Amino acid sequence: MRNLTLLTDLYQLTMLNGYFEKNIHEDIVVFDMFFRKNACNGGYTIVSGIEQFVDYINNLHFSDEDLEYLRSLKLFSDNFLTFLKDFKFTGDIYSVEEGTIMFPNEPIITVKAPLYQAQLIETALLTIVNFQSLIATKASRVCLAAQGDPVFEFGLRRAQGPDAGTYGARAAMIGGCHGTANVLAGKLFDVPVIGTQAHSWVQKFDTELESFEAYADVYPDKCLLLVDTYNVLNSGVPNAIKVFKDLASKGHKPLGIRLDSGDLQYLSVEAKKMLDEAGFTDLSITASNDLDEYTITNLKSEGAAINSWGVGTKLITSADSPSLGGVYKLAASYKGDSIEPKIKVSEDPEKINNPGFKKIIRIYNAEGKAEADFIMLHDEEIDATKPLTVFHPVYTWKSTTFESYTVKELHQPLFIGGECKHNKKTVIEIRDYVQDELSTLWEAYKRISSPKVYKVDLSKKLWDLKSNLLDTKKFV
Amino acid sequence: MRNLTLLTDLYQLTMLNGYFEKNIHEDIVVFDMFFRKNACNGGYTIVSGIEQFVDYINNLHFSDEDLEYLRSLKLFSDNFLTFLKDFKFTGDIYSVEEGTIMFPNEPIITVKAPLYQAQLIETALLTIVNFQSLIATKASRVCLAAQGDPVFEFGLRRAQGPDAGTYGARAAMIGGCHGTANVLAGKLFDVPVIGTQAHSWVQKFDTELESFEAYADVYPDKCLLLVDTYNVLNSGVPNAIKVFKDLASKGHKPLGIRLDSGDLQYLSVEAKKMLDEAGFTDLSITASNDLDEYTITNLKSEGAAINSWGVGTKLITSADSPSLGGVYKLAASYKGDSIEPKIKVSEDPEKINNPGFKKIIRIYNAEGKAEADFIMLHDEEIDATKPLTVFHPVYTWKSTTFESYTVKELHQPLFIGGECKHNKKTVIEIRDYVQDELSTLWEAYKRISSPKVYKVDLSKKLWDLKSNLLDTKKFV
Repeated sequence: MRNLTLLTDLYQLTMLNGYFEKNIHEDIVVFDMFFRKNACNGGYTIVSGIEQFVDYINNLHFSDEDLEYLRSLKLFSDNFLTFLKDFKFTGDIYSVEEGTIMFPNEPIITVKAPLYQAQLIETALLTIVNFQSLIATKASRVCLAAQGDPVFEFGLRRAQGPDAGTYGARAAMIGGCHGTANVLAGKLFDVPVIGTQAHSWVQKFDTELESFEAYADVYPDKCLLLVDTYNVLNSGVPNAIKVFKDLASKGHKPLGIRLDSGDLQYLSVEAKKMLDEAGFTDLSITASNDLDEYTITNLKSEGAAINSWGVGTKLITSADSPSLGGVYKLAASYKGDSIEPKIKVSEDPEKINNPGFKKIIRIYNAEGKAEADFIMLHDEEIDATKPLTVFHPVYTWKSTTFESYTVKELHQPLFIGGECKHNKKTVIEIRDYVQDELSTLWEAYKRISSPKVYKVDLSKKLWDLKSNLLDTKKFV
Repeated sequence: MRNLTLLTDLYQLTMLNGYFEKNIHEDIVVFDMFFRKNACNGGYTIVSGIEQFVDYINNLHFSDEDLEYLRSLKLFSDNFLTFLKDFKFTGDIYSVEEGTIMFPNEPIITVKAPLYQAQLIETALLTIVNFQSLIATKASRVCLAAQGDPVFEFGLRRAQGPDAGTYGARAAMIGGCHGTANVLAGKLFDVPVIGTQAHSWVQKFDTELESFEAYADVYPDKCLLLVDTYNVLNSGVPNAIKVFKDLASKGHKPLGIRLDSGDLQYLSVEAKKMLDEAGFTDLSITASNDLDEYTITNLKSEGAAINSWGVGTKLITSADSPSLGGVYKLAASYKGDSIEPKIKVSEDPEKINNPGFKKIIRIYNAEGKAEADFIMLHDEEIDATKPLTVFHPVYTWKSTTFESYTVKELHQPLFIGGECKHNKKTVIEIRDYVQDELSTLWEAYKRISSPKVYKVDLSKKLWDLKSNLLDTKKFV
């Protein structure tokens, strides 16, 4: 595990030094991480990267080399640098479970810790969780578009660097992919890796047929052939069929073909006809080449004969929406035992944060479908035996009353008093949990384009607190 | 340095195993890395990431743990895994210098090595060089739009993970940024880091004024204040002016203000008026908030009073064009001493690669401006004392003749016989080189939108080779 303690914006450290000089660095504060707009222009966001965030917190420490570097910047007092030498995270962190589906303005992670600790971790927390949540969400959308066909992550060469390719592959698996081409991700996260041959294999031999024969000879039971190096229908598929017949005559079952260029709808349908006529009716027809959830939806609706999808660049970078705008805002500050809620005003009312130390609950109907979320103060409880009325935090006249419902508290302790409470799960376990989560969502929230907006409401107590703060806030 | 040997697509390893089984793995081949479309929809691309690619090659080896993992996949023969144990790169790699400006279809990096080595390194090479070249190019565009104002890289929290934020910061510095907020990047690459305070600093104090006073007290000579937490013109700027006056009365020179929301044009002009009236006429007015080269161009043309730019999300992800589509194609294969050029045909003629072992030269006019590039076979020479006629590789009737010119060969040896020939330069040295490179380009090629297309032509010998191959290629 690398030491990422300096993976932070310099202003976190200039502020820490300032808090230290003003002797308020030990004040207990509450920060929330949340986003204001779902990933990928969609109707929901899958939280991912929690495990790497936990690793980051567990490894937080300033090495001598780090401190020497900070000293060289001539910004910090010696006392402060000495203080950093013993830095250790001692606070509380509450988080939703990795793989949980979340919605705008909900606290995903809430940190209650001494100011200097809570402030330092902002940047790394956002970097880690924003990216993996983005890619997990993107992958889930691609998988939804593929309607149950297997989707494979193929994007390493176009990822934003080695780690983006590797942790992006992790997130893509969490989002629902069946495997990745990234061998390092396979090793690190114990997930299936897949791959056969590239155009260069086909080119290396004197003819395409020789290249296919050679591949079949080495991998008789794993023979999937790339058929578009020269001409799919005049050369690639006929040569593949020759080789498949030979394999079948020797008792092997060929796997299928891959198309990586051209009109995937037309080519897949024609290739399937040729394979069917040759008696190979149940092979994999894999397509790759600049796919995303929109193209897959189109190809499906046009009747493409593709039953397996390799998705690269546009998945691993979430190309049409390449960042999740997660933020981390001060929500409260303690003076002794009394809590002082904090608010950041903005020209745009939707950007005003929810103050106070909060938690979040999800309301399910009798069939287990999620109906709404409810942001409340941390010490509030819901009596699920009584009807519950929730209302829109901005358009307060919009309200809904639930009669028969169950509730689930989404925050779990990740660290308490600096001690790690995280239950590590495998990537495949998290992927299964994501599927459970998705099954609780009505289809309308999962629609690829123009999804319905999920209800996220505030408790009366929280709404009153926020209104009062806005009314009384001193602005100078 | 981490071991990135498994940072590869599985098909590279299935192919390696196949080549090994067919005993053609030691055949000497030539691969070219090139892209077909410039980064960021622009007129040029700055090559970056060469140093990390060199590190990757120098560290290539399969650890026992790697081999154990590969064995667990049940895809590879024992002989092959034993063979990998002693894997070492022994080939030749030619590359342009890091920071060189390149254009579509030009070989950036050419690898001449035994097939199994040249094939393995494809994915990591592309991952490393595609990403850093993308961000270096994006940064250079942002800096061009800022017309000499300093530009700072602020994007870590929205980067595609920790490494994308850190190596992205390196690339942004190479592209022309003056500094980064990323402390780890500052430490790793010895580049300036910058940062002051966030909204949470302002919120932590009872009033904005107190927060400014506290900051000025701790950093009297580095006082740049964030003025948009409550209200820029009614609160932020007036409070900043109070504090600046106090600082000035004590002999300190305040640095300036930062705007992070609202209408940056209007707010900056009004803030500047207020600062000017208070006698602070030469302060930094820094703007941040979703900036890119297009918004900066607009703000400049509207007369915004901004003279320093913090650019985050849209720089570190190259948001409107988040990948560079670099590819790596087999160009030749040796049989003994004789070279067999290789070509990949495509439905789209522009996608056909240039075959053979090649080099690239740049032609400069008497004033040192780059006029055209010329892709030639590796053993060709240009006699610069004679006129030179170049022609378009697709539209061959388009030709240009140069009378008075100089030439520069762009490829340099990076590895020869596995031995590293790379001359390491600092990031700041590479940034200086990029500025030299940009100064050789006519403005038309650097235009942010709709740039002129730079001429990249083929030598007659290469063009003939390509035409013959296309005419005679056996497709089955």
